Amino acid sequence: MPITDALPELAFLGDRLCRTRAVLDHHAHSESHVRAGLPDAVAYPQTTEEVARLAAVAARHRLPLIGWGAGTSLEGHALAPMGGITVDFGKMAQLLAVYPEDMLAVVQPGITREALNTQLRDSGLFFPVDPGANASLGGMAMTRASGTTAVRYGTMRDNVLGLEVVLAGGQIIRTGSSAPKSSAGYDLTALMVGSEGTLGLVTELTLRLHGQPEAVSAAVCTFPDLGAAVDCVIATIQMGVPMARIEFLDTDAVAACNAWSGQTLPLAPMLLVEFHGSPAGVAEQASRFGEIARDHGSTGFQWAKAQEDRSRLWKMRHQSYPAILASRPGCTAIVTDVCVPISALAEAVEETRADIAATPIAGPILGHVGDGNFHAILLVRPGDPTEAAIAQRLSGRMADRALRLGGTISGEHGIGMGKLPYMSAEHGPAWSVMGAIKHALDPLGVMNPGKLVPQ
Amino acid sequence: MPITDALPELAFLGDRLCRTRAVLDHHAHSESHVRAGLPDAVAYPQTTEEVARLAAVAARHRLPLIGWGAGTSLEGHALAPMGGITVDFGKMAQLLAVYPEDMLAVVQPGITREALNTQLRDSGLFFPVDPGANASLGGMAMTRASGTTAVRYGTMRDNVLGLEVVLAGGQIIRTGSSAPKSSAGYDLTALMVGSEGTLGLVTELTLRLHGQPEAVSAAVCTFPDLGAAVDCVIATIQMGVPMARIEFLDTDAVAACNAWSGQTLPLAPMLLVEFHGSPAGVAEQASRFGEIARDHGSTGFQWAKAQEDRSRLWKMRHQSYPAILASRPGCTAIVTDVCVPISALAEAVEETRADIAATPIAGPILGHVGDGNFHAILLVRPGDPTEAAIAQRLSGRMADRALRLGGTISGEHGIGMGKLPYMSAEHGPAWSVMGAIKHALDPLGVMNPGKLVPQ
Repeated sequence: MPITDALPELAFLGDRLCRTRAVLDHHAHSESHVRAGLPDAVAYPQTTEEVARLAAVAARHRLPLIGWGAGTSLEGHALAPMGGITVDFGKMAQLLAVYPEDMLAVVQPGITREALNTQLRDSGLFFPVDPGANASLGGMAMTRASGTTAVRYGTMRDNVLGLEVVLAGGQIIRTGSSAPKSSAGYDLTALMVGSEGTLGLVTELTLRLHGQPEAVSAAVCTFPDLGAAVDCVIATIQMGVPMARIEFLDTDAVAACNAWSGQTLPLAPMLLVEFHGSPAGVAEQASRFGEIARDHGSTGFQWAKAQEDRSRLWKMRHQSYPAILASRPGCTAIVTDVCVPISALAEAVEETRADIAATPIAGPILGHVGDGNFHAILLVRPGDPTEAAIAQRLSGRMADRALRLGGTISGEHGIGMGKLPYMSAEHGPAWSVMGAIKHALDPLGVMNPGKLVPQ
Repeated sequence: MPITDALPELAFLGDRLCRTRAVLDHHAHSESHVRAGLPDAVAYPQTTEEVARLAAVAARHRLPLIGWGAGTSLEGHALAPMGGITVDFGKMAQLLAVYPEDMLAVVQPGITREALNTQLRDSGLFFPVDPGANASLGGMAMTRASGTTAVRYGTMRDNVLGLEVVLAGGQIIRTGSSAPKSSAGYDLTALMVGSEGTLGLVTELTLRLHGQPEAVSAAVCTFPDLGAAVDCVIATIQMGVPMARIEFLDTDAVAACNAWSGQTLPLAPMLLVEFHGSPAGVAEQASRFGEIARDHGSTGFQWAKAQEDRSRLWKMRHQSYPAILASRPGCTAIVTDVCVPISALAEAVEETRADIAATPIAGPILGHVGDGNFHAILLVRPGDPTEAAIAQRLSGRMADRALRLGGTISGEHGIGMGKLPYMSAEHGPAWSVMGAIKHALDPLGVMNPGKLVPQ
């Protein structure tokens, strides 16, 4: 139904319901290559009750509701392909409470991970999930995000303990509790995490925090080939050495980072590793890793114990995206994401590299090796349909390859609209089960339509 | 409908469909205090396809299907209050594959955790979840079990990576993948783990394995009171010392263990702790824990580095249940289970102790302190309705108290039939959401009826 019919019932939002072209346009462009039309309006609720009231109005008028955090999603999750109301959580972005003894924080969905960690700084605690982008916690939960630290601290699946959710129609529920675990019924928290707003809008999150590590040590090292690097990581994990981060950059990515940051890292497959713990613990972990890495042919070790050296290394890793973009000036990127069993990672990456090399476009590869997760940054000329089609074909073959190797079409970016074509191949009849759950909770189909489930 | 109508269609099971009184009776008695009638039959399928065929017949004849692993559940999950067919997975109990590089195992649901770890012994890997009882992996997954090692290795939620499930009506789906993580759609694995067979029958599990620790060290120590013990654990966790197990025994439990095993442990609140890691890592962790414990008033440290000393300690802990039963001869136990934020654990346990002390029955308390999870073993005379009523009231007040303190009515035993009365208080309208999901996946209500969801 047209939104104009619903406007009188939305008057409670005052000027926090916005229909100016600039605002609508802003909410039609996330960091995704996926494109969609404009929403009909953008709402900026301030309370759970306002979100519930909005959901009731939306249900009555069959208006789609699309959650918006920081606009950093990569598969079009926050776009409005069927119009409707984008619910921007920018005014629900507070850290509500910290419970140091229980190592928990309660936050509103719009808070970003950098804002959260800045506010936690003096508590001795931190929230570890780090997808790179300064995403909102609500968005990270809905995408089941992870990133560089998942090998040690887990993904959003592991670090969200409870949620407040506004369901289709406006009912408010709470999932989980503040206890560290529960076996009391279906794990609705886990069902909601990764549901991409298709089952409801998250209005509050209870998060697990972790102690800020007493000591941190990082290193870069290069390997003769990716297989050796992966075998080194497998051996390290099997020996129980708790790495906090293990990032892989292929030679193209290293070259781009060198050019961008003026460094002179050796042009070879590279691992960045980081250890967290007590000073003695970190020293022991680092020494054990060093031994294992040398056994696997690693050279060019550079340890970074000082904060400034570590910052330089991780700045390089976090800036690898602009660095790679700059390596083919004027291009935009289609960023893909698959995840495979770690034993298949070298094969998956090598095949992907060969596949990209056989095309005219460039595509450096970065990965979270400890998770079997990697990204190709496919660089295409904007508005060039041939290059876009090549990138889509490469992305599709990455998804097929991941499934053939026992993996998944998305390790951390989610499905949104961009990965919908591959869902049936991954899940078979289980995709219809997802559809049945969606229909049970949102029979009118107003919660983020056009995403994740069978359409 | 009566099972006799379905018998011709069940003939494919041959003598693996059993209706003798002894077999039916065996499957009407788990380790639970909950009682129910007999199932109409017990099936022993050998393949997923047989389970699927059974599910199709059950749907056509509206016959309940109840999964059965090792019969160790404590809340009546595997009983047949509405008759039907109990599906005993005793003939689907194999370790199907081990993937050492990916640290994964694929198992059938009937395998027990001890059988699994015996078969894994030479691989250098192990499956860490240890609920005490020698439960089946299928049952552990369906109950979202945990136990002594959850503080380090997580619960079944964290250690099941994928499932094969036969849904109501016989459709076979696969959830998850062999990749370490995924953001591809709803987390059906997490939805199924803890669903107690009400959404389907699990026929295969992909499990995360962990490296057998190179070194293990354990200790017992006593504290002036529980508050000091809990504060010690909180400080240890906040400092990032990775404990593998932290078990609490109250004075009554220690006395029962002394009497049972002939030990002379000091009669005071006691912690059993265990550390896993490299020899140097374990030594450092143990030393750091020792310092923190002394700061919190701990005395009577006994370290157990040798395997035989550790075995003696953990044998004592694992035999605490028979030891406690023997402390009041002729009694049976109603074993309760709640879980609270760790900051509220001392308060919850002390109130529970006072509550039990005000009644004529005994109830030693054991807990997984790192998880905020504790059990009271309420000892009642069999067939004494007054004592049973007292135990039920105590159990109910434990649940109320856990909820008041921000916790959950069950940390690891699940809901089954025994905890149904408290579900609404914990989940409010979210319990109806569970019911809606159940109805969407099992509209005829044949999968383990009478458990978990609103009736």
